[in-house]
Amino acid sequence: MTTQSGTTVGFVGLGIMGSPMAAHLVAAGHRVAGYDLNTEAVTRLANAGGRAATSVADAVAGAEVVITMLPADPHVEQVVLGEGGVLDTATPGTLLIDMSTVRPETSQRVASAAAERGLRALDAPVSGGEAGARQATLSIMVGGDEADFARAKPLFDALGKTIVHVGPSGAGQVVKAANQLVVGGIYALVSEAIVLLEASGVDAKAGLDVLAGGLAANRILDLKRESMVARRFQPGFRIDLHHKDMGIVLAAARQAEVALPVGGVVAQLVQAARSMGYGSLDHSALLKVVERFSGHDTHDEHDMPE
Amino acid sequence: MTTQSGTTVGFVGLGIMGSPMAAHLVAAGHRVAGYDLNTEAVTRLANAGGRAATSVADAVAGAEVVITMLPADPHVEQVVLGEGGVLDTATPGTLLIDMSTVRPETSQRVASAAAERGLRALDAPVSGGEAGARQATLSIMVGGDEADFARAKPLFDALGKTIVHVGPSGAGQVVKAANQLVVGGIYALVSEAIVLLEASGVDAKAGLDVLAGGLAANRILDLKRESMVARRFQPGFRIDLHHKDMGIVLAAARQAEVALPVGGVVAQLVQAARSMGYGSLDHSALLKVVERFSGHDTHDEHDMPE
Amino acid sequence: MTTQSGTTVGFVGLGIMGSPMAAHLVAAGHRVAGYDLNTEAVTRLANAGGRAATSVADAVAGAEVVITMLPADPHVEQVVLGEGGVLDTATPGTLLIDMSTVRPETSQRVASAAAERGLRALDAPVSGGEAGARQATLSIMVGGDEADFARAKPLFDALGKTIVHVGPSGAGQVVKAANQLVVGGIYALVSEAIVLLEASGVDAKAGLDVLAGGLAANRILDLKRESMVARRFQPGFRIDLHHKDMGIVLAAARQAEVALPVGGVVAQLVQAARSMGYGSLDHSALLKVVERFSGHDTHDEHDMPE
Amino acid sequence: MTTQSGTTVGFVGLGIMGSPMAAHLVAAGHRVAGYDLNTEAVTRLANAGGRAATSVADAVAGAEVVITMLPADPHVEQVVLGEGGVLDTATPGTLLIDMSTVRPETSQRVASAAAERGLRALDAPVSGGEAGARQATLSIMVGGDEADFARAKPLFDALGKTIVHVGPSGAGQVVKAANQLVVGGIYALVSEAIVLLEASGVDAKAGLDVLAGGLAANRILDLKRESMVARRFQPGFRIDLHHKDMGIVLAAARQAEVALPVGGVVAQLVQAARSMGYGSLDHSALLKVVERFSGHDTHDEHDMPE
Repeated sequence: MTTQSGTTVGFVGLGIMGSPMAAHLVAAGHRVAGYDLNTEAVTRLANAGGRAATSVADAVAGAEVVITMLPADPHVEQVVLGEGGVLDTATPGTLLIDMSTVRPETSQRVASAAAERGLRALDAPVSGGEAGARQATLSIMVGGDEADFARAKPLFDALGKTIVHVGPSGAGQVVKAANQLVVGGIYALVSEAIVLLEASGVDAKAGLDVLAGGLAANRILDLKRESMVARRFQPGFRIDLHHKDMGIVLAAARQAEVALPVGGVVAQLVQAARSMGYGSLDHSALLKVVERFSGHDTHDEHDMPE
Repeated sequence: MTTQSGTTVGFVGLGIMGSPMAAHLVAAGHRVAGYDLNTEAVTRLANAGGRAATSVADAVAGAEVVITMLPADPHVEQVVLGEGGVLDTATPGTLLIDMSTVRPETSQRVASAAAERGLRALDAPVSGGEAGARQATLSIMVGGDEADFARAKPLFDALGKTIVHVGPSGAGQVVKAANQLVVGGIYALVSEAIVLLEASGVDAKAGLDVLAGGLAANRILDLKRESMVARRFQPGFRIDLHHKDMGIVLAAARQAEVALPVGGVVAQLVQAARSMGYGSLDHSALLKVVERFSGHDTHDEHDMPE
Repeated sequence: MTTQSGTTVGFVGLGIMGSPMAAHLVAAGHRVAGYDLNTEAVTRLANAGGRAATSVADAVAGAEVVITMLPADPHVEQVVLGEGGVLDTATPGTLLIDMSTVRPETSQRVASAAAERGLRALDAPVSGGEAGARQATLSIMVGGDEADFARAKPLFDALGKTIVHVGPSGAGQVVKAANQLVVGGIYALVSEAIVLLEASGVDAKAGLDVLAGGLAANRILDLKRESMVARRFQPGFRIDLHHKDMGIVLAAARQAEVALPVGGVVAQLVQAARSMGYGSLDHSALLKVVERFSGHDTHDEHDMPE
Repeated sequence: MTTQSGTTVGFVGLGIMGSPMAAHLVAAGHRVAGYDLNTEAVTRLANAGGRAATSVADAVAGAEVVITMLPADPHVEQVVLGEGGVLDTATPGTLLIDMSTVRPETSQRVASAAAERGLRALDAPVSGGEAGARQATLSIMVGGDEADFARAKPLFDALGKTIVHVGPSGAGQVVKAANQLVVGGIYALVSEAIVLLEASGVDAKAGLDVLAGGLAANRILDLKRESMVARRFQPGFRIDLHHKDMGIVLAAARQAEVALPVGGVVAQLVQAARSMGYGSLDHSALLKVVERFSGHDTHDEHDMPE
């Protein structure tokens, strides 16, 4: 893709995820104006070939596509929906792609507010974490119109590997929520399996090897069983973030009028992990809640992030 | 392995699992005397080259190794520990391998009763189901002494693919319990994800494809997501059996003084599936409980076993 | 209390609860200007001796105290915090008493927005339902400053029986949330007890009589065991409202960083009751979820509200 | 009641509960032969006017009614069903009253084994604890035939206050299980309410007072809220015993094919309390699990039994 055929992109939110993503877009030949409250991050993007924007409005000015990558619902409400925000300052025809993980209803509100102003909007949350953002191997779950998805596809191609249009506005967030529900739940189940094995005098490593070879096989067992048994919980993806995401899972279920008997318990375990002080550990640290719950919490020396 | 080097085996319990297992042992050159209350199953084994035993004692007579493959704890208590049972009639030095899935404490009671009589015992429950039994691709989780495991290994090799000695008496059962806990839990989580996606107007197939490509990936998603979305629940492994196994999971946890917050809920969901009349469906039919729980139970035409 | 010593009150929200409450204030000698979107309710209050206000601003005009009694958080956000709302139009020194049941953080936002404008605010949610509102026997849980509570006390005395100042802004909502958590949970427990008794062939009535005589005794058993066993679920307090309240319970827990393992499950059961179509039944209809969950749902003829 | 009209009773199990119960029977004019492995307890009964039996068979010899009050299922299986046990040695026509708290199916097995030998049997578990046993104010839940209940009634009158025949064999145990389910669940709910209140900066005492005045009112709030807020957990009824009882609850539910979504979680919380080392504290110490789960476990100085 040459610069001529590139897209003019305003990118708001240059954090751990947004910074490498914006840089990938620059590298792919797009004209990227980046903004963040953290001016160092803006300078870094400028050094990488982007333009340093001085405000949201400045990032949005002249952009064909605006991408937002923000921490949570209140930030999206302010930066996208608020006074002087993206919708307030973008010109008709602009496509807004919110890649933040937020509630489906927030994405739907953004989409209808955008439509009222003649703008287009997609929700496109990602999974794959910091590593996926750096290596441009994110999974991207996209909600919105097919035509808007087609228009955004070349940009997504620069950022991820699995890129799927899953339905109308908000659908990307629902899929992300379903993903976090299953991920959180499997962490809890593997934690319970480990504590059950250890407390029964069984070698957890050997036991989990068997599980990983059968119907119980899952990627978390593959990637994390060794570190979990060794009680190494360097993030990865922090409990605090998974706690935020479980809030979205419950909100999405409420909006869809769906009861989640297992998800409801998993959300409480993630809350417990955070309340017990493990918020900055990897989400595999759900194990610490489960073992404390069973009186098996003797591994405090190895568990802090390094 | 030639017949000369083969082992004389008494095999009690020629059901859906035991029949093909006993036949594999015959095919591998062992001398197998089989017994079951179902005389047709005994005849089938005789036709396949085994010996038709007329009682537990007859199957045990002259055996170097006795294998039991029985439905549940009470059967093991009767056939192995009861009057005229295996321990009552076997000669010192015989190795008993109980491949039934039972409570760890039952296996431990068998092992100590065996020791009192100068016999040896292993617990060796399996996973992989009927297909695994037929194709000799079972996973076998073995608890007991290392030397007894070594002695049994050639027999296990004729029956399975993943064969692991996981610890002392009862350890095989604990690993099997941990496996069923994780399997049951993942079914519940995938079910909740499907209902959340569908109720939100998202294409479940597309959504699950994304999940299967990331950290939420698991074998159940790989093997069952298509049939679950289509509401096809032919077993496979029946809810009734998984219900029995969740009883073992809770008993194992109780014995180990371990609390299973998620497992406790999953056990109730499996009970609900059975109570609602889905006991003879595949365990993926947990989806039917979750969807009914959310008022989304409109798929009754396709769900019966064929 | 004479008219001379009465208070000038603006009352916004004349629904099932607000209407009798406003009428009690009139009867107690206060000057009450009432407003609601439902003009019939406004006329009724005028007929009872109040003043018919034509807008929120009109109700607020000249009021020493403004009381709001609204369905949920979004209504409070609009009527109290929104443009042309209570805070926008009240004069400094006015005391706002929000008697709606909302999230603690909504009450806290109201209180700080009020303070910024030189107004005072209390949160004062109630329990006791429609009957309590009619008979002026409500329990009123009040959060805010002691002096404001003292000022509001004569008004509360006209509305309720148990009136307690429980802490700073938001504390009233937290106590209400704790109340609804315990009420919802006891309904679930009594439902499980009934299904267990019936499914075991025990006379539920006789069994519950024993429970009501011992440590398990509770007001729900006292008031509702007969109607629950008979499957009569006329509200009372609707499942839909309890579902709203469980959302507040989970939000309050999240704000306080508290994990609610039992509350998390109860919230899912209440959601299930609503999803299954029982939203307009009394909250004792949690029994219908529990019995369906166990395959014992044969009582559909008696359960609709009359 | 004179000695002439009294009943000859064999009483097996003179523990904390059985000792005062046997003494009450003596005081009421019955001829009581008591047996226990603890010879001091036997001596105490003899000093109180009973007869010191030297074995189960000796206690049973000549008895019209045999009462057993034993810790758990295995003891009943041994003392009642085992070799040299009650059924083995009692003469036809004897009425066995098992007042132990055991699984319904154990009571049913006892009843049918009794019937085979021409004996009669009732299950008659109690609630009310040590205090109830001492003050003869127990609640007694009786399963079995109406005629046997009538025959036993004069004995029960010496022991308790609320005495109810609730159904056929096992029904007494089911009602006891339902009772413990509700009691355990309310302790968990009150614990969650306390932690939510405290963590939100609300005065728990004031908040619980409001709850105790409304629909959330229950006997546990009445009797225990003060001691719970003060973190005093002297038993009362120990967590270890409630843990045993939750095992019976789950077994009774399994037998009745009933799913207990809330009960399933409560059982795990009680297990957690025990696993965390609080087994000898009062069951109100569920609060310690809930608060630890939320990172609020700063009250360790007052919680040990004195």
